[in-house]
Amino acid sequence: MKIKTIMANCSQEFFDSHSEIRRNMATKDIELLVANIEKGPLSLESPVDEVFAGPYILKEVASAVNEGCDAVVIDCAADPVMRAARHVSSIPVVSAGEASHHAAMMLCDKFSIVTTMAVSVPMFKENIAKYGYSNRVASIRAIELPVLALEDIEKTFQALCKTSEIAIEEDGAEVIVLGCTGMMETRDRLQEYLQIPVVEPLSIGIQYAAAMVNTNLRHSPICYIKASDSTVALIGDL
Amino acid sequence: MKIKTIMANCSQEFFDSHSEIRRNMATKDIELLVANIEKGPLSLESPVDEVFAGPYILKEVASAVNEGCDAVVIDCAADPVMRAARHVSSIPVVSAGEASHHAAMMLCDKFSIVTTMAVSVPMFKENIAKYGYSNRVASIRAIELPVLALEDIEKTFQALCKTSEIAIEEDGAEVIVLGCTGMMETRDRLQEYLQIPVVEPLSIGIQYAAAMVNTNLRHSPICYIKASDSTVALIGDL
Amino acid sequence: MKIKTIMANCSQEFFDSHSEIRRNMATKDIELLVANIEKGPLSLESPVDEVFAGPYILKEVASAVNEGCDAVVIDCAADPVMRAARHVSSIPVVSAGEASHHAAMMLCDKFSIVTTMAVSVPMFKENIAKYGYSNRVASIRAIELPVLALEDIEKTFQALCKTSEIAIEEDGAEVIVLGCTGMMETRDRLQEYLQIPVVEPLSIGIQYAAAMVNTNLRHSPICYIKASDSTVALIGDL
Amino acid sequence: MKIKTIMANCSQEFFDSHSEIRRNMATKDIELLVANIEKGPLSLESPVDEVFAGPYILKEVASAVNEGCDAVVIDCAADPVMRAARHVSSIPVVSAGEASHHAAMMLCDKFSIVTTMAVSVPMFKENIAKYGYSNRVASIRAIELPVLALEDIEKTFQALCKTSEIAIEEDGAEVIVLGCTGMMETRDRLQEYLQIPVVEPLSIGIQYAAAMVNTNLRHSPICYIKASDSTVALIGDL
Amino acid sequence: MKIKTIMANCSQEFFDSHSEIRRNMATKDIELLVANIEKGPLSLESPVDEVFAGPYILKEVASAVNEGCDAVVIDCAADPVMRAARHVSSIPVVSAGEASHHAAMMLCDKFSIVTTMAVSVPMFKENIAKYGYSNRVASIRAIELPVLALEDIEKTFQALCKTSEIAIEEDGAEVIVLGCTGMMETRDRLQEYLQIPVVEPLSIGIQYAAAMVNTNLRHSPICYIKASDSTVALIGDL
Amino acid sequence: MKIKTIMANCSQEFFDSHSEIRRNMATKDIELLVANIEKGPLSLESPVDEVFAGPYILKEVASAVNEGCDAVVIDCAADPVMRAARHVSSIPVVSAGEASHHAAMMLCDKFSIVTTMAVSVPMFKENIAKYGYSNRVASIRAIELPVLALEDIEKTFQALCKTSEIAIEEDGAEVIVLGCTGMMETRDRLQEYLQIPVVEPLSIGIQYAAAMVNTNLRHSPICYIKASDSTVALIGDL
Repeated sequence: MKIKTIMANCSQEFFDSHSEIRRNMATKDIELLVANIEKGPLSLESPVDEVFAGPYILKEVASAVNEGCDAVVIDCAADPVMRAARHVSSIPVVSAGEASHHAAMMLCDKFSIVTTMAVSVPMFKENIAKYGYSNRVASIRAIELPVLALEDIEKTFQALCKTSEIAIEEDGAEVIVLGCTGMMETRDRLQEYLQIPVVEPLSIGIQYAAAMVNTNLRHSPICYIKASDSTVALIGDL
Repeated sequence: MKIKTIMANCSQEFFDSHSEIRRNMATKDIELLVANIEKGPLSLESPVDEVFAGPYILKEVASAVNEGCDAVVIDCAADPVMRAARHVSSIPVVSAGEASHHAAMMLCDKFSIVTTMAVSVPMFKENIAKYGYSNRVASIRAIELPVLALEDIEKTFQALCKTSEIAIEEDGAEVIVLGCTGMMETRDRLQEYLQIPVVEPLSIGIQYAAAMVNTNLRHSPICYIKASDSTVALIGDL
Repeated sequence: MKIKTIMANCSQEFFDSHSEIRRNMATKDIELLVANIEKGPLSLESPVDEVFAGPYILKEVASAVNEGCDAVVIDCAADPVMRAARHVSSIPVVSAGEASHHAAMMLCDKFSIVTTMAVSVPMFKENIAKYGYSNRVASIRAIELPVLALEDIEKTFQALCKTSEIAIEEDGAEVIVLGCTGMMETRDRLQEYLQIPVVEPLSIGIQYAAAMVNTNLRHSPICYIKASDSTVALIGDL
Repeated sequence: MKIKTIMANCSQEFFDSHSEIRRNMATKDIELLVANIEKGPLSLESPVDEVFAGPYILKEVASAVNEGCDAVVIDCAADPVMRAARHVSSIPVVSAGEASHHAAMMLCDKFSIVTTMAVSVPMFKENIAKYGYSNRVASIRAIELPVLALEDIEKTFQALCKTSEIAIEEDGAEVIVLGCTGMMETRDRLQEYLQIPVVEPLSIGIQYAAAMVNTNLRHSPICYIKASDSTVALIGDL
Repeated sequence: MKIKTIMANCSQEFFDSHSEIRRNMATKDIELLVANIEKGPLSLESPVDEVFAGPYILKEVASAVNEGCDAVVIDCAADPVMRAARHVSSIPVVSAGEASHHAAMMLCDKFSIVTTMAVSVPMFKENIAKYGYSNRVASIRAIELPVLALEDIEKTFQALCKTSEIAIEEDGAEVIVLGCTGMMETRDRLQEYLQIPVVEPLSIGIQYAAAMVNTNLRHSPICYIKASDSTVALIGDL
Repeated sequence: MKIKTIMANCSQEFFDSHSEIRRNMATKDIELLVANIEKGPLSLESPVDEVFAGPYILKEVASAVNEGCDAVVIDCAADPVMRAARHVSSIPVVSAGEASHHAAMMLCDKFSIVTTMAVSVPMFKENIAKYGYSNRVASIRAIELPVLALEDIEKTFQALCKTSEIAIEEDGAEVIVLGCTGMMETRDRLQEYLQIPVVEPLSIGIQYAAAMVNTNLRHSPICYIKASDSTVALIGDL
């Protein structure tokens, strides 16, 4: 099957340096189409960034069917425009953040999300509130490194270790969920260091998208009513 | 004081026919600047519409200070991009929908929202979940008339009567909140007919914005961290 | 319009020293009638105080219409007998505490209430539970100064600074709500010091009452069924 | 042991006709002191009634120790001034309504309360919200017979049957809790008729008060801080 | 009346040393039949222990009627197989843990449970979540002494003092609930030391079972549908 | 990878007739080991059945590692002894019911579970409460066909159609989750008929187990503390 992942930023540099590791996430029988958005923020860290990335994420989602894809994964832990995306797609739309929560809940009672910046935290809180399982979240914490600084993997790893330990000891976290898909290179080492599960959102998002395709499931048309033609036309006008 | 109201659609027709009634909402010591967005959907009815209206709503919010305004009111019951708007504004940002909920909660234990289309309902549900007072909402119902059909005031009134009565009798609604600021012309008559309070979101939104200005209150800078320069620059690029 | 504020204690001294600052809260087009209760506790700090203030608060609420008032504001952050008051009033009854919560929620995600004594805290917790938005409250803390000691404004200000800072740093408060209308003289200075919004309950209560009058709203007669004649007669017997 | 029950109304007629059945509730080793209040409403049906009964309930609670009692039971399913009562008592204060909920929860997943009048329903809803177990309540319904009409036991029984059956079939009630201690004479017959448990609040309240005495338990002094002398003095002034 | 208590472990040593103190819990008009299970874990501390104790607890519950009992109390604070037990019993089944929560809730706003081992904590959390009153629980803490080490009463008392004080000071506990019925010998001294109520689950469980018998109440047959014959036959096969 | 599925009943007939369809669920790179329990109920429909199946489910879980398995799936929608199973397993333990909920939540806002018998419904309610997302569940309904009657596929299909339509129309279900893994043969046809997603628990459980293996995730050792040797020894004694 073919799955399209959509980075929620338009940084060419980020795309160039992170495409390879994404493509390596394809397990047997998955072909990945790694995409980013053509316009918008260089990184998605705040609700304002989400507003500007939004139209271009929808454009990438809408084009996936014609590109022969069986499912789409929004490659961002903050799940930007996830609901709207399902209104414009006839194939499954999984979002990395939401998928990572569901995986974490099957591994423990309470998980913490460790993300990049304090300005990002309310986006996660809002998502968790919308999704309706706040009681399963121990805390949402930031390491205070912006997305584009995650390139320094050693520094990112150290910051994640420190903040995750606080989440475990003070907040009662039993699993750590990475709060940015730009952190994936630290995951194995972090899991080894912390000795508890560390969920990387994009990798589990891809697996869950494949699970949907394998079991012939797609978002409910009653919940996500097909967008009207005039609405879809707005995508064409971008 | 000067308050800017921002219609969340770009229909010139809607703007022309609805500006006057809005300007009449100005009670003593309020001057209203009635605006709409320059690009986006002709009406905001779905999550997809919100994505496309979003950048242009932020543009109008950001320009309000330079226009000499003391506060901004998002003129839409679905509260599009309300959180992001507060990140880009140094003056109070009130949204009509949120304000209408708070007014309703001071008037009863359980209120219902009666909006336009079924596709709009999940936006309201999501908002209520995010705002954290789902237990105060009896139901969210749609009259199945699109925004642009609200021009037929008699038909709108009849539909609102019928749906509101179901909300009262079956769902336990004690107050009706209008779920679209395009319904305002029916409000007085509907309140008279139902004999319970009917909250019109924009009018109460303007009053609450004035209350914020009169008591020198503005959204918390800890919750709504000022957007970074690079993020704000995206507004300039529109 | 004419709005009556009702202090929930019968201390003549408190009335004499606090009437002026209350009358100064009247913004354009509001005339204030500042009242207190004729019998009951000298200050309202505990659930027992509320029981003894209750009948006399209802008496003041019930007489407001004949005094030509358009709305009533219960001048106490603990919202004593708020529900009962609405049963005996044909004009809007706003309570300072409830109004302050609604204002705070439009300014942030989580607010803290800072009140006078530990014995008062459960009253606020109980109110928040009844009102159904506990998830929006970071904490409720006491400065351990009784109401009548608030006369020492400097001491009150210092205590509020200290306790508010704990609420912000340890509990995650993004807005501070003053938990006693006897604290109003410290508000501007406290907001300046903390650099986050500080909501003073009576001033916002008056504004919200005016908003109700301006938009022709009153509590729902389905929720607050008119008290029976025999019940109302109890007021006359006081 | 000696337990005082306090009817929350001052009707001499009600007292005369209902004292005997109460005294018969004393199981082995319990002596009952059946009291009512000296002033206030003739029946407690609304939040306004509660305000006027409140001071006199506290007076009866406060005098119980000197009357040699080991515990007090508030003889009203609406739990009037329950919290305040614990602040002025050094012996256990059980309230019939609260006790009935706890019994019901040990017998099923969801119970319904069937009370007298619609005006009473919000008092129960507010209590359940304060007590924090709304999710265990299937519904709160009224039979629309005022307290003083419960003297007609046959009519009361018929009304309770009808309303309870609706609660069971439409709301999913698995246990019925009587919402007025004036309904006790119908209880055995109603339980026989419905074939599910029917909890009578005063009888279980007395049992639970005895349980507290037998296990040497009393309300927590941290939660219910002893009322100050000036506050207690208000009782003496009645 | 005759009440059967069922220890949820098969340790003969524990039975021998703890039967006497249990029999002393019988207040006037209660006769106690103290039992344990014939096979299973030596102590019940983990979800795995519960699985292995489960069938034998049901066996003891099912035999109680033929032993002439009027009610059954599961003698374990973790409420093992409580729901299933009610499906196989025609007399009231009270469980010590659940009863202790209900008693605590009538004595304060927030209580903490102090149990034996960290591995036991999630069982209590899960119970509280199922029972639907998590908001009433301040914390669940472990003293890190296994059940069989509770024989050292002095050590147990010291550990309970220390952990309870943390629960009070850091978590806001207003009442302490003992999280193991093996801790009963420390209760009076602990209550004296802490100066807040300490609820011992078995003693209150017995009282509440007697209350059910005295008021003719039994679990609802709609909620706890009578187990089928084939299911009950499994008990006979043990 | 090799995944073991464990039927939670010991019916040889059920095993014989349902093994084939299970083995067909293995998508690329999954090898399935289909097992059942050696003793216990012939079908798992009630909390009592769960108690008797429990020890033997743990036995099958514990032996999976030595059988060379990479993950285990409990093949029952009621998730019997799921928590205990994770305490005795060093490889991922997925349970079909829990997995089906998580899949459903990624496809809609509200789902309904349609299970076999009324006696089963409280098990599902209890699970949903424990898992903490009751607000995502529209309803849990029974078709009133026992597990062993599901052999009649046509009758099962008709009953599922009827009950699912009620769930959709009256309860607001947007996705249907099958509440028994014995219903799997009707799934494709039911999804086609209802035109909304129908989640079959075992098939998605297998996919999610594979996802855990592929991303190197296992339940948290802090949440699911390794069972003690004495506890594990109980498995050996069966």
